[in-house]
Amino acid sequence: MHVSLLEKKRREYQPKLPSLFNDLLNVCLKKEKQDVPILDEIRKQFPKLETSAYKLVSGKSAIRNLRIGAFFSGGQAPGGHNVIAGIWDAIQKWDKQSTFIGFLGGPSGLLENQHRILSYEEIDHVRNLGGFDLLGSGRAKIETEEQMQKAMSICNELNLDGLVVIGGDDSNTNAAFLAEYFLTHGCSTKVVGVPKTIDGDLQSVDIEIPFGFDSATKVYSEMIGNIMKDALSSRKYYHFIKLMGRSASHITLECALSTHPNLALIGEEKKTLSEIVDEIANLIEERHTHKKDFGVILIPEGLIEFMPEMKELIRELNQNQSVDKLSEKNKKVLINLPEKIQKQLLSERDPHGNIALSQIETEYLLIELVTKELQKREFSGKFNPLAHFFGYEGRSCLPSNFDANYCYSLGILAAIAVRDGITGMICSVQHLFQKVEKWHLKMVPIIHLIHLEERKGKKKPVIQKTLVSMIQNPFLYFKSIRDSLRLDDQYKSTGPMQFFGDEDLADSVPKTLKMKSLKS
Amino acid sequence: MHVSLLEKKRREYQPKLPSLFNDLLNVCLKKEKQDVPILDEIRKQFPKLETSAYKLVSGKSAIRNLRIGAFFSGGQAPGGHNVIAGIWDAIQKWDKQSTFIGFLGGPSGLLENQHRILSYEEIDHVRNLGGFDLLGSGRAKIETEEQMQKAMSICNELNLDGLVVIGGDDSNTNAAFLAEYFLTHGCSTKVVGVPKTIDGDLQSVDIEIPFGFDSATKVYSEMIGNIMKDALSSRKYYHFIKLMGRSASHITLECALSTHPNLALIGEEKKTLSEIVDEIANLIEERHTHKKDFGVILIPEGLIEFMPEMKELIRELNQNQSVDKLSEKNKKVLINLPEKIQKQLLSERDPHGNIALSQIETEYLLIELVTKELQKREFSGKFNPLAHFFGYEGRSCLPSNFDANYCYSLGILAAIAVRDGITGMICSVQHLFQKVEKWHLKMVPIIHLIHLEERKGKKKPVIQKTLVSMIQNPFLYFKSIRDSLRLDDQYKSTGPMQFFGDEDLADSVPKTLKMKSLKS
Repeated sequence: MHVSLLEKKRREYQPKLPSLFNDLLNVCLKKEKQDVPILDEIRKQFPKLETSAYKLVSGKSAIRNLRIGAFFSGGQAPGGHNVIAGIWDAIQKWDKQSTFIGFLGGPSGLLENQHRILSYEEIDHVRNLGGFDLLGSGRAKIETEEQMQKAMSICNELNLDGLVVIGGDDSNTNAAFLAEYFLTHGCSTKVVGVPKTIDGDLQSVDIEIPFGFDSATKVYSEMIGNIMKDALSSRKYYHFIKLMGRSASHITLECALSTHPNLALIGEEKKTLSEIVDEIANLIEERHTHKKDFGVILIPEGLIEFMPEMKELIRELNQNQSVDKLSEKNKKVLINLPEKIQKQLLSERDPHGNIALSQIETEYLLIELVTKELQKREFSGKFNPLAHFFGYEGRSCLPSNFDANYCYSLGILAAIAVRDGITGMICSVQHLFQKVEKWHLKMVPIIHLIHLEERKGKKKPVIQKTLVSMIQNPFLYFKSIRDSLRLDDQYKSTGPMQFFGDEDLADSVPKTLKMKSLKS
Repeated sequence: MHVSLLEKKRREYQPKLPSLFNDLLNVCLKKEKQDVPILDEIRKQFPKLETSAYKLVSGKSAIRNLRIGAFFSGGQAPGGHNVIAGIWDAIQKWDKQSTFIGFLGGPSGLLENQHRILSYEEIDHVRNLGGFDLLGSGRAKIETEEQMQKAMSICNELNLDGLVVIGGDDSNTNAAFLAEYFLTHGCSTKVVGVPKTIDGDLQSVDIEIPFGFDSATKVYSEMIGNIMKDALSSRKYYHFIKLMGRSASHITLECALSTHPNLALIGEEKKTLSEIVDEIANLIEERHTHKKDFGVILIPEGLIEFMPEMKELIRELNQNQSVDKLSEKNKKVLINLPEKIQKQLLSERDPHGNIALSQIETEYLLIELVTKELQKREFSGKFNPLAHFFGYEGRSCLPSNFDANYCYSLGILAAIAVRDGITGMICSVQHLFQKVEKWHLKMVPIIHLIHLEERKGKKKPVIQKTLVSMIQNPFLYFKSIRDSLRLDDQYKSTGPMQFFGDEDLADSVPKTLKMKSLKS
């Protein structure tokens, strides 16, 4: 592995610790009295899983030699390597004979027993570094009876005390099922989840934010801020910036709060395509009267999923997979789209045969339709649009101090959970907006996050993807300022992430998180 | 103006100074004895301009109240604001009555006398910050007799001691003509150039690197490094990353030296399109045999200009502006290109009616042709290409410490040049790869950089755009290592620019510069 000078320095960074972690020989998880009601239909599917959360407190626990396996699941998120470093440091502190087993290439590494027993040097090499390259990742699922049976036999074979699943909503749903399966079939391996995703859509009362969101949005905000400065200096381009994030608009909202674009579309507002085109065209016309033929517009990747007419069209296309069978209404929606987008809707399919929405160039769609709209309005100014898409740039960046600290704590907590015999739970670090020493640590039953969702006509228990809430502070605050951002350029260039020097800067937390911590 | 927390901290940064600048009351420019021979044909056009360079030495000079005007010309480059801060601090040190006049929106600000007399607060507000937004910029030219006459009358009206042109090759060429014109017509305003461009193509014996190149390439390298980590973790995409930089491949070479991609195309090697497609297809096939269906490829913006068959086609298209009149050979080249690229070649025109090469999506061209080539070869692996273009993200970023220091020195030097009555010269800071205190400072006649170039059938004296040299260290070194980068992933994630902490990191200089300083 080749490392840069900055990576070398970052490896020396000592993550900050919640105060309880200062003495890892004297902490343990304690069952919380208060019980959370679970829907019968969900409870039925997880009869063996515990429903009480556990809180980390100081106290004695049996210290022993542990064997813990882990894999990364799904897209990368900065900080993953620190989860592993946290697990490693904890189990080594308890017993030098403890073993860490990394499954390679994601969940398939477990199913195919592709693993490596990691050494101190290997783990030390990736401390505070980005990427999931230590183990690789993948999108395989462990869902079917056969797969769970396979996973169990490998865990038994490797004599694992614990299996740590580092993943998003689907992976953690699967972790709950796996934990249930292991309990039912007498496998003693504990299954513990770690909330990962840059998209920010794995949240709950207990999961304030998944790891990776902070670093990724800081990279995107850096780029957006740079482009804003450019727009302000050259005063001739409209930048349409699409941001990764799957359905939810958390990334776009966070970046909008950080950088103050002229317009940031939030999918969850469910505006129609024509409303959005109108909104952008109005913006451009109004700015023109202020002699501003330039601007910056943020677009969430999942935007079209929320547009009522597009949602309808996509639903029908997914069902029929053919244009001829479309209803008249949807056919009309389709043929009014730019040719390129029509082609993408008809050709880009994911492995399930559904439209691969992330492949649809929404930024291009909007540019085309806005251009037409402006022609219709006989707009007299200049409209020079430029399209950008930021995604891959942020998934594997160096983790911010926040994510480095957070992930390291998540790893230690996961190790404690395995040691204390907890299963089917997800690591929860709370009060994240406060100083690290004040963070609270809990293990929360994954079933607390699960709801029933219709998938292929059947109700399935899955972790609910958290969308941007229209009634919580982050969106409400943005809503209260956004009108003022349209004409007056309050652009903020947040600049590149800083790791050294001033703590206010280097240890900053996501704005979303800070705002959620405030009373409405 | 709205500033971020990092920008607030950056404003407090005190640029490092070459040792002579520690006592601005005791430095002056001294004529160098050694004379540089100038071609008669060039000399004829600049009969009044001095041909000797001036070196900064310690010594007394008449200190007086100065009025200096300046404008930004062309695309943004990080550090521009520090040139102005340098001018300001120097003239204020000499006399508090000195005045700085900023022309707005580029050269047209001078021609239309759109200016602002700047205050201390305004200048202080943008210290060490990116963008050209203090004054704005533009691409107007001051070339014709009428324009020069206009410029002169404004300079006279404003009673300017000096006019500082902060621009690239064309703007500095114009600065030389303007200086000559002013001398001929008895205008006492001195015209001084400052070498600006992220593209890195304004270089000479005396101009080691233009300002902005360092910061911009650091931003691009950050993004490339992040994408590399992503590629290495997910192991399923080929990233085709196009980088800004006009014709020359300096930016691509610098980023390649910093990040170690599997392949970096250097336009100046003049490979044919089919050679390049073959080279990429070979890479993909070979990597597949090593179970690597992923990779990172860097593409300079100007690549197609150097491809012999494309150059020929573009030349004919520029002349004829019609497909029907194309020679059979070029027609064949054209119809073998992807449809989208054909359209771009036939429709995108710059203001001069030439093909707007920067609008041609070379990354898409290569992806399409490589896909076809792999089909022809019956490639059995997976080829999932993703295209990126990085440009605007780097032009207005926060200047690195290197650019902040460099620009501040350029500004001070420009002020000294005006004070000491120098005209038609460009600011030159040398030994840039050394510590700032060891930098050498010179004023170099712009005509030293000028050569004769055929433009529209006529020989015109212009500053030569510096291409990547095939016989200098940066390229030679890259050539010596590139084979080893193809299969073995030696990716380097340089990470976000750091401003604080360790000097090795925060004050690093471009690799190109460092290598050029070494003996071959």
